[in-house]
Amino acid sequence: MKKILIVGGVAGGATAAARLRRLNEEDEIIIFERGEYISFANCGLPYYIGNVISDRNKLLVQTIEGMSKRFNLDIRNFSEVIDVDRENKTVKVRNVKTGETYTENYDILILSPGAKPLKPKIDGIDEADNLFVLRNIPDADDIKKFIEENKPNRAVVIGGGFIGIEMAENLALRGIKVTIVEKLNQVLPPLDFEMAQIVHQEINANGVDLILEDGIAGFKDRGRKIVLESGKEIDTDMTILSIGVAPDLPCSENPLAKSCGLALGKKGHIVTTKQLQTIDAKTGQVVEDIYAIGDVAQITDYVTGDETAVPLAGPANRQGRLAADHINGIDVNYTGALASSVLKVFNLTVASTGNNERQLKTKGLKYKAVHAHPANHATYYPGSSQIAMKLLFDPDSGKIYGAQAVGREGTEKRIDVIATTIKLGGTIRDLQGLELCYAPPYSSAKDPVNMLGYIACNVADGVYDMVYWNEIDDIVKNGGYLLDVRTPLEFGAGHIEGAVNIELDELRNRIDEIPVSKDTPIYVNCQVGLRAYLAIRILQANGFKKIYNLSGGYLTYKEAKY
Amino acid sequence: MKKILIVGGVAGGATAAARLRRLNEEDEIIIFERGEYISFANCGLPYYIGNVISDRNKLLVQTIEGMSKRFNLDIRNFSEVIDVDRENKTVKVRNVKTGETYTENYDILILSPGAKPLKPKIDGIDEADNLFVLRNIPDADDIKKFIEENKPNRAVVIGGGFIGIEMAENLALRGIKVTIVEKLNQVLPPLDFEMAQIVHQEINANGVDLILEDGIAGFKDRGRKIVLESGKEIDTDMTILSIGVAPDLPCSENPLAKSCGLALGKKGHIVTTKQLQTIDAKTGQVVEDIYAIGDVAQITDYVTGDETAVPLAGPANRQGRLAADHINGIDVNYTGALASSVLKVFNLTVASTGNNERQLKTKGLKYKAVHAHPANHATYYPGSSQIAMKLLFDPDSGKIYGAQAVGREGTEKRIDVIATTIKLGGTIRDLQGLELCYAPPYSSAKDPVNMLGYIACNVADGVYDMVYWNEIDDIVKNGGYLLDVRTPLEFGAGHIEGAVNIELDELRNRIDEIPVSKDTPIYVNCQVGLRAYLAIRILQANGFKKIYNLSGGYLTYKEAKY
Ligand SMILES: Cc1cc2nc3c(=O)[nH]c(=O)nc-3n(C[C@H](O)[C@H](O)[C@H](O)COP(=O)(O)OP(=O)(O)OC[C@H]3O[C@@H](n4cnc5c(N)ncnc54)[C@H](O)[C@@H]3O)c2cc1C
Ligand SMILES: Cc1cc2nc3c(=O)[nH]c(=O)nc-3n(C[C@H](O)[C@H](O)[C@H](O)COP(=O)(O)OP(=O)(O)OC[C@H]3O[C@@H](n4cnc5c(N)ncnc54)[C@H](O)[C@@H]3O)c2cc1C
Ligand SMILES: CC(C)(COP(=O)(O)OP(=O)(O)OC[C@H]1O[C@@H](n2cnc3c(N)ncnc32)[C@H](O)[C@@H]1OP(=O)(O)O)[C@@H](O)C(=O)NCCC(=O)NCCS
Ligand SMILES: CC(C)(COP(=O)(O)OP(=O)(O)OC[C@H]1O[C@@H](n2cnc3c(N)ncnc32)[C@H](O)[C@@H]1OP(=O)(O)O)[C@@H](O)C(=O)NCCC(=O)NCCS
Repeated sequence: MKKILIVGGVAGGATAAARLRRLNEEDEIIIFERGEYISFANCGLPYYIGNVISDRNKLLVQTIEGMSKRFNLDIRNFSEVIDVDRENKTVKVRNVKTGETYTENYDILILSPGAKPLKPKIDGIDEADNLFVLRNIPDADDIKKFIEENKPNRAVVIGGGFIGIEMAENLALRGIKVTIVEKLNQVLPPLDFEMAQIVHQEINANGVDLILEDGIAGFKDRGRKIVLESGKEIDTDMTILSIGVAPDLPCSENPLAKSCGLALGKKGHIVTTKQLQTIDAKTGQVVEDIYAIGDVAQITDYVTGDETAVPLAGPANRQGRLAADHINGIDVNYTGALASSVLKVFNLTVASTGNNERQLKTKGLKYKAVHAHPANHATYYPGSSQIAMKLLFDPDSGKIYGAQAVGREGTEKRIDVIATTIKLGGTIRDLQGLELCYAPPYSSAKDPVNMLGYIACNVADGVYDMVYWNEIDDIVKNGGYLLDVRTPLEFGAGHIEGAVNIELDELRNRIDEIPVSKDTPIYVNCQVGLRAYLAIRILQANGFKKIYNLSGGYLTYKEAKY
Repeated sequence: MKKILIVGGVAGGATAAARLRRLNEEDEIIIFERGEYISFANCGLPYYIGNVISDRNKLLVQTIEGMSKRFNLDIRNFSEVIDVDRENKTVKVRNVKTGETYTENYDILILSPGAKPLKPKIDGIDEADNLFVLRNIPDADDIKKFIEENKPNRAVVIGGGFIGIEMAENLALRGIKVTIVEKLNQVLPPLDFEMAQIVHQEINANGVDLILEDGIAGFKDRGRKIVLESGKEIDTDMTILSIGVAPDLPCSENPLAKSCGLALGKKGHIVTTKQLQTIDAKTGQVVEDIYAIGDVAQITDYVTGDETAVPLAGPANRQGRLAADHINGIDVNYTGALASSVLKVFNLTVASTGNNERQLKTKGLKYKAVHAHPANHATYYPGSSQIAMKLLFDPDSGKIYGAQAVGREGTEKRIDVIATTIKLGGTIRDLQGLELCYAPPYSSAKDPVNMLGYIACNVADGVYDMVYWNEIDDIVKNGGYLLDVRTPLEFGAGHIEGAVNIELDELRNRIDEIPVSKDTPIYVNCQVGLRAYLAIRILQANGFKKIYNLSGGYLTYKEAKY
């Protein structure tokens, strides 16, 4: 019989406990949870605030009573682990209601304390009595209560990450005029800029204001006025602070020992092994009796092998199960996370997996990007819509680095398929041949994922190269020849400055009109990239050698310039 | 310059032509199409009849004029290829309007003639003037015209395959009382019986009658009366015959040479190589200048390596592209199809990939099946629903043979992910660790696909074995001990005859009530399988050795008994 202590009773901790019990009926398993609730639906909190989820009880996936009974666990809420004595294998626990402390010994310790919202020391922040963060049920209760009691007209959401965007939407649903303030030039960091622009448009279209490239300098008037770094001031009735999360390290009692002497990564996460065990900060040795999982853990980027931390529920659940497995003698080799994610933004679905272009640039990896706008299902069947997609890959090996998609129905499905392909080591070649379900209400005979595979392989094979929305203006300004092969009608309705229009279906006859030599680069665009590609094949057959397709066509260009 | 002739101008043929032109601007490419239209949306026809698609022009994905111009093709409609002279490399073409014939020579011949609806010689079939099949636009026009002119009250659909079910739904949408007659004991052959039962229920719930295990013996009264094999007679105003398709072999002129001397498979499909080339019937040699693709081709079952034919648009498109590639010197190694498919049946989505249990039995493969009913997304987020899923795998290697799913939103997404896993050689182990997009409106932190992986691995690892809905009654009748661990309330509302009820959460305390020895098999059930599994873990810890979980729980049992 082992005695296993778990710090944190939600996604990682509760999952680990359940699996531990399934694997061993005898072990003593104690969960310490600082808050009142265990095993609650963090991810549902914004929707509870928005009254989309109306029944508060639904947020409680498991109650202490229910879970204790079902899994024969000792679950102690309002119990904060404030110190870990690794030598004596004990933890110090404080009852947060009474302040009393006691120690509890362990054979195995699992740390799943999660991450806490960042709350920087800014002028006036402590005086702001209308300022909220959102992590748990009491936070949600506070926000809901404030709304009901104060009936705010205006709200500001600081930070345009997942939680910020969800909160903006849910506050807007309650009739509140919302402004999002974001320090970067875009929301939703998993997206690249041009993809985020589609989201910006959706946010604005739903009446939410967006202030980009501006940070918070301070709060005035008990939080009723927010001062931005630009000097601008905005009035607000309430504010949600959602600028990110940081590892909620235990051992709060002793700040110096906050990490329990465990090795921490660059951003303060607990370094873990492929078995989810921790590392001693001094010796670098594996600490075999302490596991760390979930938001607090530093893990491996599955795609690039780099260090990362992925504060998402799927990986937390997965890691919880694997830690329990390893504790019970099952081989575990956790190869990291892809950070597959999805988010509803009003009527859009935003999904991504793997690395985006920004990350690849930072990591100095060689990559190519392709954009496409396939229809989510047969266009002749009612209700179809375009999905804006972006695929990133290594043009030499065909390895897939990541993908992003913004659209309506069927958006995250395509990212799931690509995530599966990445996970199983498939390349852009494999995307071509995937055999996905097709009937008119669901897809097309060539699924969007197949199409991305075709496009990527053409680029990888050097059939043509891509030119990107953020390069083409300069190219044309510097004398580059840009051929727009859409119809004159489309061209007339809007085109890139300096482009020359020869409709695809006339290109064979009008090829002599192209004034540049066969060795001069030609840039071709159409609406989304398909017709430009067909034009490129014709140009090639006519001897032109350096041809570029505007990735994603005029549509990506226009979206990006929103 | 090559001269390439293509027989058939729709899914396979048109795709091949487009790719051929992209790969080579010089080749002479001629498409022969017997009918009026090329490149039309076969798959949209039922929805056009149902007025779901209202604009007939939308069915024409490409027109002859448009496609000829764009791809510089010679497209000849109303032109049937009626003979192939392989020695002289010519085809004989008949203008189906004038009856005139001529020959055309080729360097390469691509056969993509598709498959034609079966129309057996039954009593009175030729006199039935209200009997229709559905393959192309003229067929759809005929059906629509008949409906508009005759305003039928009742219709009979003969055959419960994809097209039959789609037609039943679309006729019902037009206010017609529909009866489906199906020879087998279920509709939709890709499904196993218990999964099809869920579909039967949906069909009936939408006012469509279903006559199973009865065939058509004849028609009376110009088709107004249908005589069934059982002797039963049904009145109908119109009838759709959709009992399957057969390869539409060219060379209709000379029935003996229908196959152009090419090797045919057991069901009359043209045998193809991994390069989509054909085989000489006599010599067994590859016929390098004749390719066969699409519904007419015999290909390989990707999962089991057996011979198969997959009359679906995805594979036809894929094969069309690959044939064009191979003709242009690109390496091609087509490893076959999974037969991934999806179908809308009123409010349900029915999807599957790979082999079903019936096929595996026929092939004599060792397999295990697991059933589950995961929610399509977080249950605390509004609008969630259960997906009935079934996974088939090799318990030794973990190889995935196939999967089926019946549900609402998000159903085909899970099959796409499994199809991708199969295609990339992933096993049930890999399903566990797939990292799929999660937010409450889209999935759960453990996606249904992960869950199937967990369940399958537990079975493969011998943690427990499954017992199935069609075995349990006999087992209990023969004295088997069946423990139902649901709550007394659930038990009271319906349970399997002979089951004993001990609620999961009381099992630890009441374990002594179990009257059988530790070596006697125990069968456990709950609603879907999860609680039974938790009970099994407790039973095991208490020394019971042979424990079975009722796969899919009481829910699959009840669904199957519909
Ligand atoms: C509003 C919101 C929305 C989200 N939406 C999504 C989503 O849509 N999709 C998604 O994948 N992820 C989402 N997440 C993230 C997801 O919830 C987390 O990744 C996941 O819960 C992490 O699991 P964990 O076990 O590491 O931490 P948590 O689930 O946060 O659990 C940690 C627990 O440990 C307790 N604790 C901390 N320190 C101590 C201590 N010293 N002693 C005792 N107890 C302690 C905390 O009180 C906390 O309850 C969302 C998160 C939030 C807050
Ligand atoms: C009503 C209906 C609904 C469908 N729904 C779906 C669906 O939802 N999903 C899915 O994946 N698949 C669906 N399919 C199947 C899909 O359409 C076929 O698998 C696909 O079209 C096959 O392509 P093909 O090129 O082999 O044949 P086809 O697309 O049928 O094209 C063959 C063409 O060849 C012509 N032809 C035949 N013989 C000759 C000859 N001797 N000379 C000249 N021309 C000739 C025929 O007139 C025909 O137009 C559906 C089919 C139908 C009929
Ligand atoms: C219409 C039809 C002729 C089109 O065939 P196609 O040209 O091969 O297919 P698509 O139009 O989807 O285009 C795919 C090509 O465009 C390229 N492409 C697509 N989108 C692109 C983009 N945004 N940028 C660059 N290239 C793009 C792909 O790489 C691919 O080219 P490749 O094969 O040379 O690599 C054929 O699909 C057809 O006849 N369909 C109707 C019949 C049918 O399928 N019926 C059954 C289903 S209802
Ligand atoms: C509720 C909670 C404790 C459940 O953890 P869990 O028991 O590991 O997970 P599940 O209830 O999904 O059950 C999975 C187990 O049941 C088994 N199972 C599931 N369905 C089954 C079925 N139909 N038949 C047989 N077994 C089944 C699986 O095999 C798995 O067992 P295993 O890990 O031993 O192989 C945990 O997920 C939790 O706390 N969730 C809420 C917090 C959270 O995740 N928040 C973030 C998202 S909002």
